[in-house]
Amino acid sequence: MTVFTSGYFTMKEAEAIEYSRTQLNYFAPDADLTCKEIGDGNLNYVFRVVDEKSGQSIIIKQAGPVARISDEFKLSTDRNRIESEILTLQAKLAPGFVPQMFNYDPVMNCCVMEDLSDHEIMRTALVNHKKFPLFADHITTFMVKTLLLTSDVVLGHKEKKELVKRFINPELCEISEDLVFTEPFYDCPRNEVFEPVRDFVAREFWADERLALETAKLKFEFLNNAQSLLHGDLHTGSIFVKENSTKVIDPEFAFYGPAGYDIGNVIANLIFAYSNAKATIEDEAARADQLDYLTNTITDVIDLFIEKFNREWDANVTEQTAKYPGFKEFYLDGILRDTAAVTGLELSRRIIGLAPVKDIVSIEDADKRTSAEKTCLSAAKTFILERDTFKTGDDFVKLLKESEQKYF
Amino acid sequence: MTVFTSGYFTMKEAEAIEYSRTQLNYFAPDADLTCKEIGDGNLNYVFRVVDEKSGQSIIIKQAGPVARISDEFKLSTDRNRIESEILTLQAKLAPGFVPQMFNYDPVMNCCVMEDLSDHEIMRTALVNHKKFPLFADHITTFMVKTLLLTSDVVLGHKEKKELVKRFINPELCEISEDLVFTEPFYDCPRNEVFEPVRDFVAREFWADERLALETAKLKFEFLNNAQSLLHGDLHTGSIFVKENSTKVIDPEFAFYGPAGYDIGNVIANLIFAYSNAKATIEDEAARADQLDYLTNTITDVIDLFIEKFNREWDANVTEQTAKYPGFKEFYLDGILRDTAAVTGLELSRRIIGLAPVKDIVSIEDADKRTSAEKTCLSAAKTFILERDTFKTGDDFVKLLKESEQKYF
Repeated sequence: MTVFTSGYFTMKEAEAIEYSRTQLNYFAPDADLTCKEIGDGNLNYVFRVVDEKSGQSIIIKQAGPVARISDEFKLSTDRNRIESEILTLQAKLAPGFVPQMFNYDPVMNCCVMEDLSDHEIMRTALVNHKKFPLFADHITTFMVKTLLLTSDVVLGHKEKKELVKRFINPELCEISEDLVFTEPFYDCPRNEVFEPVRDFVAREFWADERLALETAKLKFEFLNNAQSLLHGDLHTGSIFVKENSTKVIDPEFAFYGPAGYDIGNVIANLIFAYSNAKATIEDEAARADQLDYLTNTITDVIDLFIEKFNREWDANVTEQTAKYPGFKEFYLDGILRDTAAVTGLELSRRIIGLAPVKDIVSIEDADKRTSAEKTCLSAAKTFILERDTFKTGDDFVKLLKESEQKYF
Repeated sequence: MTVFTSGYFTMKEAEAIEYSRTQLNYFAPDADLTCKEIGDGNLNYVFRVVDEKSGQSIIIKQAGPVARISDEFKLSTDRNRIESEILTLQAKLAPGFVPQMFNYDPVMNCCVMEDLSDHEIMRTALVNHKKFPLFADHITTFMVKTLLLTSDVVLGHKEKKELVKRFINPELCEISEDLVFTEPFYDCPRNEVFEPVRDFVAREFWADERLALETAKLKFEFLNNAQSLLHGDLHTGSIFVKENSTKVIDPEFAFYGPAGYDIGNVIANLIFAYSNAKATIEDEAARADQLDYLTNTITDVIDLFIEKFNREWDANVTEQTAKYPGFKEFYLDGILRDTAAVTGLELSRRIIGLAPVKDIVSIEDADKRTSAEKTCLSAAKTFILERDTFKTGDDFVKLLKESEQKYF
């Protein structure tokens, strides 16, 4: 069977089975393979191949020739190389927090990896109001390890520059540059604004030159600041969870950028989950309980990040000038500033921009959805404009509560 | 003759003639070629090959296998690829301000380029107290064109990222990271401090934790901020001048870094020339005249840069968010801040660090040399610590004059 080595084509389910049978050494020769395409993402086809006899299973993730988010984004399939390389690197830096990679195939532009079907997508789980008490601990370990240990603080600068080169990612970065940093902040035809908040958005966002200026500064920070090797798309749809396990997937947006970008994405998506819980849980005690869980998680993500960052820094810093008194604090301050800003950007873009977030659009009651959107957007603006003032987990939660009181 | 295609070796003069005869189509078949190695730099061998019949001449610049600055720096010969590629790019962006490239040879690691023997090295000319009234105009055109037109303000972001990748330059950057940003600011054994200023340096530089912290911040800016495609080593030894012409050479340190790095290097080296003139010109009127020329040049370099930057920005900006009100001013402010900081770093490192500058070490009178060094170092410290306060050419000159009054 040489069809898989003679040139790229996008597979169907039957071909994914054939691929597993002929190109991989994973299943037994007499395996009874079935396959389902389970991709709900926007850029790839995801095949789950199961041996119905043994129960063993794998995931084959194949880059589509055109991003599925929209025909306007044309993406090369190089993103699958980036994904396989970074998963291998992340597995070394933060063992246990990413799916295991079995194979990368540069002809078919696919990678074969551990099946995490015993986990669920965190966004879905949170919209169903589940709790994951270990999540804050897990994700902060993942972030501190992957962000700090790939920076010039720790890595030899030549080695770091080679990584910068390997993970230059023009096409995926362009998506973020447009959708995160640009389109939400003017009346772009591609935006998908919920009609009841359109006036609010027009007044508070599109007419505000001060806000626009700050988003431009942040965009150039994203374009130019090669601080850490980011996941680059670390929302709750890129995280698989179960009670005692957290797995970060889909790192195809990876590149060297400001460390706070990943952290801000996590925080913003926890705020979406919070807004969903606030708007949709009828039972008062259950609602209070879920909201407490989510505010505690937000607080912990920030505070545990700071705690572990300080510990990892002290244990691993190699750059001589980074050891100068005051530099660690200066550096962490910058990360927290970027975290607050990106929290605001992500909150804005997934309400105003293309790709609205499920946590919000699944709120059926239009008034409550309006309240949820205004809460998020009002906080978003302050996160961006006053990004220098968020130094602890409490600071983040305090703003969320204040915004909520205005609009709920 | 296949010796030149079968593998790299460092040429001697006779081989450079043979190379010109057999590998290039520049000279006539009956040319009477002579050659001299004229390199006074630290990284390369520079052969001037002349046809004594026609007077035609070329330069062959070959990367040595080991940097000549010190056996401790081992450099790959990739820097010659970088040099040839960037000279080609700079010739497009700023025509007339770089030598013409004729050939790049990746086997022999050499490039063949226009002979500029009718020009002289600007540092030598300034130490001989010559004047170049067009220099400020020329160098600001060169800097605005090469820095602004390679930035995300103007270039498509995908194209810019490809350039970032092509010009990642780990080895040459490491030299700057060590010699410019690190070693001068502690009692490094490799420093070459003039004995009469050792106490001053120990007290004002090595014992100052506040200064150390600022240098660490600036080092990380240099490591991470991929703003513009820099020359990377734009001192007066990298500039050929004659009355009506300015040619920037030796761009092997080129990489994407903070735009102010190039401008700060120019300013610092004009300050060295100023200090030399102050200390060595006996005749009062001649001294005043040369000092006036140099302060006017410093003022003009900053003010013409600002003027042309604004003009080029308005004519060429493509990035949508860069057009938001206030962003151009914010961006220029950052460049001027980095310019002041790098002026201070370069002044420090070529007095304290390895590679002392000829303008200063050629001052024979020890007292005057001490005054010159203290003037430069005192200004350097303020340029670094108060880098936010230098907004016009006058601001730069004012600090120079104040420092001079303290120490001369």
